[in-house]
Amino acid sequence: MSFFRPHIDAMQAYTPGEQPQAGKFIKLNTNENPYPPSPAVARAIAAVVERGLGRYPDPLATAFRARAAEVLDVEPDWILCGNGSDEILTITMRAFVGEGSLLRYTYPSYILYRTLAQIQGAKTEEVVFEPDWSLSDRFTAPEFEGHAPRLAILTNPNSPSGTVISPERVLELAERLPCPLLVDEAYADFADDNCLALVAQNEKIMVARSLSKSYALAGLRFGFLVAQPQIIRGLVKIKDSYNCDALSIAAATAAIDDQAWRAGNRASILATRDRLIDGMRGLGFNVLPSQANFAWCTHPDRPLKPLYEQLKANRILVRYMDYPGWGDGLRISVGIEEQIDAGLQVMKTLL
Amino acid sequence: MSFFRPHIDAMQAYTPGEQPQAGKFIKLNTNENPYPPSPAVARAIAAVVERGLGRYPDPLATAFRARAAEVLDVEPDWILCGNGSDEILTITMRAFVGEGSLLRYTYPSYILYRTLAQIQGAKTEEVVFEPDWSLSDRFTAPEFEGHAPRLAILTNPNSPSGTVISPERVLELAERLPCPLLVDEAYADFADDNCLALVAQNEKIMVARSLSKSYALAGLRFGFLVAQPQIIRGLVKIKDSYNCDALSIAAATAAIDDQAWRAGNRASILATRDRLIDGMRGLGFNVLPSQANFAWCTHPDRPLKPLYEQLKANRILVRYMDYPGWGDGLRISVGIEEQIDAGLQVMKTLL
Repeated sequence: MSFFRPHIDAMQAYTPGEQPQAGKFIKLNTNENPYPPSPAVARAIAAVVERGLGRYPDPLATAFRARAAEVLDVEPDWILCGNGSDEILTITMRAFVGEGSLLRYTYPSYILYRTLAQIQGAKTEEVVFEPDWSLSDRFTAPEFEGHAPRLAILTNPNSPSGTVISPERVLELAERLPCPLLVDEAYADFADDNCLALVAQNEKIMVARSLSKSYALAGLRFGFLVAQPQIIRGLVKIKDSYNCDALSIAAATAAIDDQAWRAGNRASILATRDRLIDGMRGLGFNVLPSQANFAWCTHPDRPLKPLYEQLKANRILVRYMDYPGWGDGLRISVGIEEQIDAGLQVMKTLL
Repeated sequence: MSFFRPHIDAMQAYTPGEQPQAGKFIKLNTNENPYPPSPAVARAIAAVVERGLGRYPDPLATAFRARAAEVLDVEPDWILCGNGSDEILTITMRAFVGEGSLLRYTYPSYILYRTLAQIQGAKTEEVVFEPDWSLSDRFTAPEFEGHAPRLAILTNPNSPSGTVISPERVLELAERLPCPLLVDEAYADFADDNCLALVAQNEKIMVARSLSKSYALAGLRFGFLVAQPQIIRGLVKIKDSYNCDALSIAAATAAIDDQAWRAGNRASILATRDRLIDGMRGLGFNVLPSQANFAWCTHPDRPLKPLYEQLKANRILVRYMDYPGWGDGLRISVGIEEQIDAGLQVMKTLL
């Protein structure tokens, strides 16, 4: 006999990418940023520690909202801050998707969406990308197996593919959808374009951002949502009162304030991304052009799981992903040049 | 037309205690600790910043679990860490209480429980404390309005009263209850006794702890749950993968490691608590004996809302609480001696 809700008992926990706490790895498996964050981050954290941690933090992270609003050209009340963009996903899920309701998302994509739906006891519909990684109108269907979707999620750029759906197409999809569309832009800072400007055009469009990748702050846990203010007001009811701590609010504010640092960091990653893609293609892999900080590598004949394991034995950690009914591949994060060169070198000896 | 689930639209947001971000207040309204945390906390934070924030944190906060297990005399897999004990409450609520299910808790108590149930679309039953602040067997009734409770919560020590239910009685209640019992021990470090040892005796008993109060780390957001490992394993499915950030894990580990600091801090607060209670009684208030870091003050004839407002105008912030159908009072946190003396002085001039 269990006290848990039956669907919680029935589900499996989501397994995040390996985070080895010991040992020296070239870690290219969870799309972390290999460069340090802005030096202003350390100063902001030290200032909070100096001021003291005894008081509760600002429930709405006002300082971050004010500065981010300027940087992103929106109003502060269009921004909701979260304990990582994972929490933003959790909050939107709880707001829109109840037991037995339908969540729609693309496939293959971030596998966490399914887990979040399972926690809610919700149904899921996975709309498979077209062979050219475009998205058909099936993504906007009014229902699936008798259920209207309550929320749709599009990862853009997508993981593991690194491909994008254009803002024009996203707007079209949102207009047809019967429900809100969460555009998960965790990787948007590495892309040519993004969907921020669409939020003002259609209240169904919400854009989630993360400071883990482009701001090199995965350890901090800070993400945010941009949506119209009536949507933000509804979502605020669901978040924990003090969901962002005093250190992360100050650090995130300092990070988003330093756009020059982010731009320099981005330029380095884009250059190394080309190097990674060229190198992997040279080794016989099929590699998609990427607009994110990773590359998706498949191989015409070589089994990839053993290769992943051999790489790991050589202290090089990449992400092996196997999507049931779809296929497998290696998702390799863009590290610094030396890491990518070392990874390619080892790969060469293994092939 | 709204996209939100109907019960989210219908509910009001929880209003946390005021957190003035500007202006100089003697802040005695949200039970923060007026003393600094252990000096080891600042060192631990600096070490993490030095090591870098680019990597995702340890999903299970292993370092904290290991050290806390030693301090609390449990096993590490009996501990679940959260982004404040508010997140622990949220996780347990999502695990056990679904739409239309019943949550039972005591009244008057922490008003957040009701909000958490509302987010779930759940029903609530408030079992009123007896006049002597004991808890009758009604708290263990098999059902209420045709619904069996799925989770019961007992704040112990209770807020706003500062009173406690003895561990013997808590065990008795848990044995009779048809559902898990979450003992919210946010204030237990200021009490004479606690319910930690009961967790091994009955899998229904779960104990939530916070580092906000006794460890003076409200700004950090760190709390944890102690429960039997099969319960922890179920709850882990629900939490966000990286729900605790790298800074808070290191800081919390350093804090719980420094039990001498906590004990010294506690002794100071208990001494000042007596001073506060004596002072308020001297001014004509009825003040309950408290086992927490605050005192609950009612007055036989004086209206308290205007007094709260006059205190605020004098830059002294206490918590005015008005429980519908029950009564109102001032909940005053134990500050440092000088703050309490200043507060009592102002109060005297106002009465």
